[in-house]
Amino acid sequence: MTDLGATIQRDAEGRLRHLITLEGLTREEITAILDLAQFYVRPPGELPARDQSLAGHTVANLFFEPSTRTRVSFEIAAQRLGAEVVNLDMQTSSRVKGETVLDTIYTLQAMHADILVMRDAEPGLPAYVAQHVAPHVCILNAGEAHLSHPTQGLLDALTIRQMKGDLTKVSVLIAGDIAHSRVARSAWQVLSTLGVKEIRIAAPDDYLMPKPREFPGAIRETDIDRAIQGVDVVMALRIQRERMSSAQIPDESAYHDQFGITMERLRKARPDAIVMHPGPMNRDVEIASNVADGSQSVIQRQVANGVAVRMAVLATISRNVQARRQFQ
Amino acid sequence: MTDLGATIQRDAEGRLRHLITLEGLTREEITAILDLAQFYVRPPGELPARDQSLAGHTVANLFFEPSTRTRVSFEIAAQRLGAEVVNLDMQTSSRVKGETVLDTIYTLQAMHADILVMRDAEPGLPAYVAQHVAPHVCILNAGEAHLSHPTQGLLDALTIRQMKGDLTKVSVLIAGDIAHSRVARSAWQVLSTLGVKEIRIAAPDDYLMPKPREFPGAIRETDIDRAIQGVDVVMALRIQRERMSSAQIPDESAYHDQFGITMERLRKARPDAIVMHPGPMNRDVEIASNVADGSQSVIQRQVANGVAVRMAVLATISRNVQARRQFQ
Amino acid sequence: MTDLGATIQRDAEGRLRHLITLEGLTREEITAILDLAQFYVRPPGELPARDQSLAGHTVANLFFEPSTRTRVSFEIAAQRLGAEVVNLDMQTSSRVKGETVLDTIYTLQAMHADILVMRDAEPGLPAYVAQHVAPHVCILNAGEAHLSHPTQGLLDALTIRQMKGDLTKVSVLIAGDIAHSRVARSAWQVLSTLGVKEIRIAAPDDYLMPKPREFPGAIRETDIDRAIQGVDVVMALRIQRERMSSAQIPDESAYHDQFGITMERLRKARPDAIVMHPGPMNRDVEIASNVADGSQSVIQRQVANGVAVRMAVLATISRNVQARRQFQ
Repeated sequence: MTDLGATIQRDAEGRLRHLITLEGLTREEITAILDLAQFYVRPPGELPARDQSLAGHTVANLFFEPSTRTRVSFEIAAQRLGAEVVNLDMQTSSRVKGETVLDTIYTLQAMHADILVMRDAEPGLPAYVAQHVAPHVCILNAGEAHLSHPTQGLLDALTIRQMKGDLTKVSVLIAGDIAHSRVARSAWQVLSTLGVKEIRIAAPDDYLMPKPREFPGAIRETDIDRAIQGVDVVMALRIQRERMSSAQIPDESAYHDQFGITMERLRKARPDAIVMHPGPMNRDVEIASNVADGSQSVIQRQVANGVAVRMAVLATISRNVQARRQFQ
Repeated sequence: MTDLGATIQRDAEGRLRHLITLEGLTREEITAILDLAQFYVRPPGELPARDQSLAGHTVANLFFEPSTRTRVSFEIAAQRLGAEVVNLDMQTSSRVKGETVLDTIYTLQAMHADILVMRDAEPGLPAYVAQHVAPHVCILNAGEAHLSHPTQGLLDALTIRQMKGDLTKVSVLIAGDIAHSRVARSAWQVLSTLGVKEIRIAAPDDYLMPKPREFPGAIRETDIDRAIQGVDVVMALRIQRERMSSAQIPDESAYHDQFGITMERLRKARPDAIVMHPGPMNRDVEIASNVADGSQSVIQRQVANGVAVRMAVLATISRNVQARRQFQ
Repeated sequence: MTDLGATIQRDAEGRLRHLITLEGLTREEITAILDLAQFYVRPPGELPARDQSLAGHTVANLFFEPSTRTRVSFEIAAQRLGAEVVNLDMQTSSRVKGETVLDTIYTLQAMHADILVMRDAEPGLPAYVAQHVAPHVCILNAGEAHLSHPTQGLLDALTIRQMKGDLTKVSVLIAGDIAHSRVARSAWQVLSTLGVKEIRIAAPDDYLMPKPREFPGAIRETDIDRAIQGVDVVMALRIQRERMSSAQIPDESAYHDQFGITMERLRKARPDAIVMHPGPMNRDVEIASNVADGSQSVIQRQVANGVAVRMAVLATISRNVQARRQFQ
């Protein structure tokens, strides 16, 4: 699988200029971002980390697909780096007047909004836009169709690293609707690059299982009880109701019985296994409520790491732009 | 009437940690908040008061029931104390994806959004949430069903104190749909605690009058012309059209004739009586337009005091959290 | 044509207090605003200009008619001058509760939001509101019906001045739906005052052509090919579909054939002519896509100048308020 975004997101010197996909990032690049993110992590109850890495910069959130969690996470991350933030609800924006997306981007670029955070339900927009913006403008992909959600992948990797240390000894299960999940794809990319010991992907049937050429090297399972055996990390994915009917699973309760991460199933994983979920959860569908709130759950830690990772990505991308500027 | 919020909102040392209800606040506590609010008051035309009491803190506005006025008032108050503010329109948020409210709260908490301002049309949410958040997270009730609107009660008390001085000599009439009014309940709580001389509640019929066990000590009237006689303060409440029909009042005009605060009626109050309204007003329904804009109206002063009171509450709560942190 | 706004927008000493219309502004006043705006212009890729001209001030955006571009432009301009900004979506605000616009304004004013940026599809609101606000409150018109869009006129003038220098030697064509265009009216006002050599207005038929008493001194054309001959500046206006049918133009394609700014037509202008559009564009309707993206297009420069002009207007108005305050 080659990916246009992987090429597009680098400048002539090979530095990261956008973040569109985790494909093609080296272990060193990922580790540097995770290290910086770790620097921004603070325990609950302490004041959050803040600096002025983005002072004078304007970050625009363009969410063509609504997402309060991710939008707020980016907004908070940018504010804590001293940036000015504007939110554009692209559902109700000038798109209704028929303006093309590219004209909206050019407008923001002309206003010196130099970091554009985008989410879209369709594939291709971030890479397309990245090909057209001025050299000093950065595109951050905040979720693209079923393809890519790079900051989610990074926050998942950071969370596993915090809990498990050496990733080369870790066995990870990603369970649920893998076929339609950008979370699964980005997690697979980052964990593969970091040399995780084993990745298992489990989906209840063919419709929810990705094509054979995808996720090379991953172990494929349809039986969740077998898939979960002995893993260190269980990552449950959100399932959408309309997908269940396509997958011929009658309802949420049937999905939970057949494939939900329950306490009983979790006991088949390693005793110190952690449970992750990208949120928002369907409680007692893909994950039992007592698992989500249980001692092995690191779901809130993922959210906290999300802000730290977004700060690290924003600071890294912005530093790379400044480095480029100095040699012009 | 005992109130779960009154217990929940205090920490182990008895300090205010949340603000869910005015029930149970002592005269000293209320006076301290009003004094701090008064410190933040500036005359029209001067620059507003600002400090850095909330620097480094993130305030999240979660409005499950829309309210531009109150949301903006809290947003401005938090900004002027140096906080970062994020707005979540909970009508269009991930709630549509089926996320529980508590998961949204946990998400914000994990993002180090440590002050959560909530409004909801249903009763119980602020106290419920307050029982579940981490020790450093504060819940501020910005309007809860018909039950509680504590910052409104405080701004009403501040306004009366500014205009009338010694509250123990003041007679207050609250007029309108008392039964369904959180404004009336919070006003009654704060004014009772401050030892106001007399509170009269007036509603045009039984449907709009609260149950007998509520508002103990208040004088009850159904005739507005008798109720208004000789009072120092007239507080008109907003009436909603659907309530009028339930109350068998045919329309807005009939309500105005029967119960509206008109110039003619206002003359029966004390000559220096002040007129208040929590806004937004139905002009010429519960209050005559010339009364709202007249020399006895302090309605805009209430709005100005609203920002000052919210600054005082934010600063107080935040200071209490910091005090607790130092002894951990 | 006399305009209430032209009188209302000045204080007793004749200083600009609001910006409601460009009518009545002197050449000196306009030049001073453009000079300050030019001071705020930065090349693409450089950090935007910032100062603290509006520190301590609160700017409220009240958009009764939605406009993401203009709202974001004002929001960014205010932020870069150190102001606090609140956005009120007046479609979903307390207007639904029946609050009058004036009560909303009084509420914001009481909260010390002292600069109110307003857009409305109906005529008259900015001048009406300006007559009622307190002396320290400023109203900025961000688009009013077909009548006035003063910051757009100023940014158009700044763009022409940057590209052409001496305006007295410049011939400007405004082409399209002049009758319903606030952009055309504000451009005509500012360019007339600055002594532009010639203004031509071109509309495809009577319905889109303004009344004879409007645009005095402008040359009127219905044939775009004749109108464009030898001009230095071509300003294309947005056309709305419903206007085309009223103008008996069957569809967008017919409009483009009959009146669109195409490469072929642009060749009839001066070789160094510039092409402008207020945005958002209907590509290949009123302007050919290759013209919009071509070397003669200054459309993105207009957007960049928009932020600079809004910063200049905000700073000027705020300085005038402070000057007035010192002599009270």
